[in-house]
Amino acid sequence: MAEWIGKDRRARRCYGFDEVALVPGEKTINPNEVDTAFTIGKRKFKVPILAAAMDGVVDGTFAVEMSRLGGIAVLNLDGVQTRYENAGEVLDRIAKAQAAEATALIQSVYTTPVKEKLISKRVAEIKRKKGVAVVSCIPAHAERFSQIAVAAGADIFVVQSTVTTPKHIATEYKSLDLYKFCARTRIPVVLGNCVTYETTLELMGTSASALLIGVGPGAACTTRGVLGIGVPQVTSTVDAAAARDFYFKRTGRYVSIITDGGMNRGGDICKAFASGADAVMIGSSFARAKEAPGRGYHWGMATSNVNLPRGTRIYVGTTGTLKEILFGPAKVDDGSQNLMGALKTSMGSLGAATIKEMQTVEIIIAPSIQTEGKIFQVGQRVGMGK
Amino acid sequence: MAEWIGKDRRARRCYGFDEVALVPGEKTINPNEVDTAFTIGKRKFKVPILAAAMDGVVDGTFAVEMSRLGGIAVLNLDGVQTRYENAGEVLDRIAKAQAAEATALIQSVYTTPVKEKLISKRVAEIKRKKGVAVVSCIPAHAERFSQIAVAAGADIFVVQSTVTTPKHIATEYKSLDLYKFCARTRIPVVLGNCVTYETTLELMGTSASALLIGVGPGAACTTRGVLGIGVPQVTSTVDAAAARDFYFKRTGRYVSIITDGGMNRGGDICKAFASGADAVMIGSSFARAKEAPGRGYHWGMATSNVNLPRGTRIYVGTTGTLKEILFGPAKVDDGSQNLMGALKTSMGSLGAATIKEMQTVEIIIAPSIQTEGKIFQVGQRVGMGK
Amino acid sequence: MAEWIGKDRRARRCYGFDEVALVPGEKTINPNEVDTAFTIGKRKFKVPILAAAMDGVVDGTFAVEMSRLGGIAVLNLDGVQTRYENAGEVLDRIAKAQAAEATALIQSVYTTPVKEKLISKRVAEIKRKKGVAVVSCIPAHAERFSQIAVAAGADIFVVQSTVTTPKHIATEYKSLDLYKFCARTRIPVVLGNCVTYETTLELMGTSASALLIGVGPGAACTTRGVLGIGVPQVTSTVDAAAARDFYFKRTGRYVSIITDGGMNRGGDICKAFASGADAVMIGSSFARAKEAPGRGYHWGMATSNVNLPRGTRIYVGTTGTLKEILFGPAKVDDGSQNLMGALKTSMGSLGAATIKEMQTVEIIIAPSIQTEGKIFQVGQRVGMGK
Amino acid sequence: MAEWIGKDRRARRCYGFDEVALVPGEKTINPNEVDTAFTIGKRKFKVPILAAAMDGVVDGTFAVEMSRLGGIAVLNLDGVQTRYENAGEVLDRIAKAQAAEATALIQSVYTTPVKEKLISKRVAEIKRKKGVAVVSCIPAHAERFSQIAVAAGADIFVVQSTVTTPKHIATEYKSLDLYKFCARTRIPVVLGNCVTYETTLELMGTSASALLIGVGPGAACTTRGVLGIGVPQVTSTVDAAAARDFYFKRTGRYVSIITDGGMNRGGDICKAFASGADAVMIGSSFARAKEAPGRGYHWGMATSNVNLPRGTRIYVGTTGTLKEILFGPAKVDDGSQNLMGALKTSMGSLGAATIKEMQTVEIIIAPSIQTEGKIFQVGQRVGMGK
Repeated sequence: MAEWIGKDRRARRCYGFDEVALVPGEKTINPNEVDTAFTIGKRKFKVPILAAAMDGVVDGTFAVEMSRLGGIAVLNLDGVQTRYENAGEVLDRIAKAQAAEATALIQSVYTTPVKEKLISKRVAEIKRKKGVAVVSCIPAHAERFSQIAVAAGADIFVVQSTVTTPKHIATEYKSLDLYKFCARTRIPVVLGNCVTYETTLELMGTSASALLIGVGPGAACTTRGVLGIGVPQVTSTVDAAAARDFYFKRTGRYVSIITDGGMNRGGDICKAFASGADAVMIGSSFARAKEAPGRGYHWGMATSNVNLPRGTRIYVGTTGTLKEILFGPAKVDDGSQNLMGALKTSMGSLGAATIKEMQTVEIIIAPSIQTEGKIFQVGQRVGMGK
Repeated sequence: MAEWIGKDRRARRCYGFDEVALVPGEKTINPNEVDTAFTIGKRKFKVPILAAAMDGVVDGTFAVEMSRLGGIAVLNLDGVQTRYENAGEVLDRIAKAQAAEATALIQSVYTTPVKEKLISKRVAEIKRKKGVAVVSCIPAHAERFSQIAVAAGADIFVVQSTVTTPKHIATEYKSLDLYKFCARTRIPVVLGNCVTYETTLELMGTSASALLIGVGPGAACTTRGVLGIGVPQVTSTVDAAAARDFYFKRTGRYVSIITDGGMNRGGDICKAFASGADAVMIGSSFARAKEAPGRGYHWGMATSNVNLPRGTRIYVGTTGTLKEILFGPAKVDDGSQNLMGALKTSMGSLGAATIKEMQTVEIIIAPSIQTEGKIFQVGQRVGMGK
Repeated sequence: MAEWIGKDRRARRCYGFDEVALVPGEKTINPNEVDTAFTIGKRKFKVPILAAAMDGVVDGTFAVEMSRLGGIAVLNLDGVQTRYENAGEVLDRIAKAQAAEATALIQSVYTTPVKEKLISKRVAEIKRKKGVAVVSCIPAHAERFSQIAVAAGADIFVVQSTVTTPKHIATEYKSLDLYKFCARTRIPVVLGNCVTYETTLELMGTSASALLIGVGPGAACTTRGVLGIGVPQVTSTVDAAAARDFYFKRTGRYVSIITDGGMNRGGDICKAFASGADAVMIGSSFARAKEAPGRGYHWGMATSNVNLPRGTRIYVGTTGTLKEILFGPAKVDDGSQNLMGALKTSMGSLGAATIKEMQTVEIIIAPSIQTEGKIFQVGQRVGMGK
Repeated sequence: MAEWIGKDRRARRCYGFDEVALVPGEKTINPNEVDTAFTIGKRKFKVPILAAAMDGVVDGTFAVEMSRLGGIAVLNLDGVQTRYENAGEVLDRIAKAQAAEATALIQSVYTTPVKEKLISKRVAEIKRKKGVAVVSCIPAHAERFSQIAVAAGADIFVVQSTVTTPKHIATEYKSLDLYKFCARTRIPVVLGNCVTYETTLELMGTSASALLIGVGPGAACTTRGVLGIGVPQVTSTVDAAAARDFYFKRTGRYVSIITDGGMNRGGDICKAFASGADAVMIGSSFARAKEAPGRGYHWGMATSNVNLPRGTRIYVGTTGTLKEILFGPAKVDDGSQNLMGALKTSMGSLGAATIKEMQTVEIIIAPSIQTEGKIFQVGQRVGMGK
């Protein structure tokens, strides 16, 4: 399982989405008849795709529409929605900024403190329109924000940082005790992000209802480039799924794992489920929705870091409604639209009737290498069949 | 044989054409004296290359010329040839469409229903000109279309979808029973596409005369990108060949396997045979023929999918006659012309007198990586010149 | 540990920074509370990053500022600073030269002989401004230059060539005896560059205080391209660290290893420490500092080789002060600024309280392959923007 | 040694130059004091680099200069020099042709038959100017041309085709019996090209004095692209060297192996020797010499194939004299000039006093992958040291 990388030291070979593919078995299923549902705590969602807590992706309106379509959108309580009464005006300014000044503007915008009354207000807005209110913040704010959000009617609370572990050492401030936090919070708590079998198992012990899996997954990801940290998502999902299954066997409690990050296309989402995910969390695909507050722009939450910005604002464009992105019809052939259609077609072709069956389809290692010659591109871009 | 990709889970490493090469042995043969024939049922063909059932590649005229040259061209019964009396006019419109509107136009063109009398007509046209009439459709149309095509004189019937398995589960419609279908159809049946040893073996049990091997083979293939599904062709062909040989040993019936997809150049075709193929199926190389109905354009059959289009129309150009593409002389040095010349030269250099001997030449793993420096490119394929 | 590369011959698979990543464990630490100090001999430095002895990077002024910030800058005694009284004028000419004539100009500039009195002068200038005077030269000059430098007050002496071994065979000239040299030199000696466990162990036996690890590390490195020689830095650092630890166990003397070369971003530096480095040496990041004498240009010392120039002058630009490059705030998101911030954040996320703990974090093999599709790049480092 | 590529089938992993690197040991040597000589039969040459029998590379003048410098240039007896009295005029036309018409022109030029009296003349011209006359032709011409060339005073005769094996099967013509040919020819015979341990061993049994090793070595090589055939050069050289050493042990006769093809830079040449080569054969580097007859253009001998052209004319430019290319000073830093300087520097850095010692230096597998970020290119292009 591990290779020698030098004298007396081994390292495990880990795999990402681009390095694997899925293999059809001996049966197929009508894609319309597969079941894609997943659960967080006692809630069931028919769309196992979450919109990430990013300011260019989710606001109240987006969250309501996502709920209506059967999925979950996570509202960021550390972002512009809770720092500004009129968040739209701020988002406009970010969208209109010149490229060269975007990072500086974002850094400046995020220095305005979060207003607690806006937390209540944003949650209430979602609930009023019958949305599922799922909100998130960093560990340092979790104690305070969670109480406000729960009081305002939030349904699920997400505590998220680049790397979340059961133990955080600091003398300058008081660390969040995740065990106490989960126990005390009356709504389901989702924790993340984490990787490795051991940490996933430990975090399940906090009584969290679900975990976000993924740290620096992308090969070109800023976390990996700047900090050197990252685990490719196929391996991190396989490891987390093994921990989930062991934890379930031992405790009878099923803690869903949500693969977060590194999925660019329908195929990547399908591979995440095949690796063992119960659901996936996606940012950029949704930033392209008409309903996304980013006005065609997208930026990671680490962009605002004053000392060590990671990521920048990029233009992704607006390519369709959220409904089209989730359910099609796709207007493009690159796998970025009709994500649920792709998932269902994949499940059908692989003979997986449910997400649990999809978690056991055969995976092969089949690297995505460059082709020697590029003469006939059509043979590569064209699927056959219907 | 399998690597660990995470806790308690292994995946098999599979190989594609770009990752392998063929090794000369201790003898060579005059290329003019090698035998490339293969069979489907009791029919023998001297050119073991099939033109794919794609609307930019095969029409009646093309099929007749391909027959004359010793090969097989498969006519698509779900495409423009059977939807439109005057298919040429439709193909003209597709060729003349702006790039931006091509996918939408193709989607719209394919909504016109198939006319059953055109099935009879297209088959009869090929037979009248002494061609071998090989026609294909998707499983849902196979019962009906096959009866019409057989009545009209078709020689071989192909049932093809992205993934074909012996068992398809659906309650919304009645699945095609492949066992009954093959038994009932009076002409040889070719089924596909499939991969894996087990499924190939099962499908041989339906009494099909040949199988198409290949699901999402290309690294950049849309099926792999959108659905995550795909097996590189060296491994899928090696697996299918093992199934074929075992099936032959057990039953005495030889079911040819036809590697379909992912071959861009002469070298890829040679590698497919070395991996165990009896024949190969190719689309884009033939779309470049003067006789191809696509007028220099090419598109996959999944381009027309209304909800999840995969692939788009691309320009491949018209580079020579079908005869030149098959037998040369090649006007270009990139391996896209004189495919039979390349195959025979390769067989001669490898000392393989027949396709059966070619199936056993030594394969090595020799990835096609980028070279460090690009200073002296003459030993390699380049096109700078003056 | 070793793969067969042909009949009767094996080769060890070695790893570079791009092929590995670091894995978080079960705890995290407040980045402000980690300790990054390292030692050379009895001196302790809080910044474990050395500026390389390159003429576009280090002059006296730069060395003083680097000392003030807690690190080390190595002044090249074979370069323009000791060949020219008015080195600034020469550096101006190099910076202003046309690209086509830069290598020829550099070759010509370096034919002027080193003036011994300038060695004394440059060392004295650094000491006068309270800097740590660390100077370097090639083995052929070490005997003579070291005496002058030590007399002038130098603190640490570095003897550096592409490949340094305990034994050098020559009849045309007298080789430097490293054992005698280290014994005789009254200040700590740093030797390099070397790779492999055996050579590192041998060189530690010379009584050197630290070693520079790295020969032709970059995949595109000129040493590897021109001479075929090179060991990727993860493996060379792991090997050298094993030698250091064994040497320490046997002798009780701790010889720091300094990984030199191939680090382009914060993440690479973090990986070097995780591989076992006590410190790292960097050139190009510092060439971009306002204080760097290269005026935004950078060139390797082998550029001046009259017969076999390796490397050329390149433009890197001036992006910030040395303090900003070391401690931020970063103005860019590519990992090239706030190197200490990146190191501390990485250590915190990995739960490493000290460099010694950082040397034991889990490394995985996670190649940096190209992604299949490039649709949604926001999770990754991109620079499109408006 | 072999990996599974599918059911019941294994393939050996082979390695090319870009995938390996050389590792310094515990000593170094003054590069001026290394010995690079090699032998063919009883002749000794101090430059172990042969210029390939290509029409853009070698004519009589080039051969004489190469001999004077201590190496070997092979004159192609199947090319323009023996087809045209005034070859210069033909080479002019090829150099002046438009890119689009170059392949057709070359095909046409090579239809003029070889004139036997020109064989004598070309050999005599070289001998008159004290050159070593080494000439080559394809197996079909070997019987006839060798007699003429030997009579005219040729020193070494080369029989070369893409794949040469001890046994060639043909009924349309009489195959060359290599055993009889070598026995009958009074001057040393060099045979090629071949790969694999077994074939190398067999060909040594013909009593050839040296073998050319290499079939389709380059990843992008036309032979590999068009025919699928090829073995990367590190593995083919290691295999051939093992055969050579075994043959020498058994017979006491040392048959030099000459690695031919796939070397783009000095580093590749160094790696060929480290893999076991006694000498290397190079084309394109020499096509750039002022003395090369190609006038800055270069084309492979398969370009003229009427049915299956492989390769085309490319522009490589004229960058220096042959002497500069072999011995420097290099005017560029890319490893394409001063090839002997690079070899000697590499041998010195690796502590190899002779080619035989160079054949045993440590090789590692260190793929040349793309770097994640390209921010600081100087750290990659710049060698350190002297």
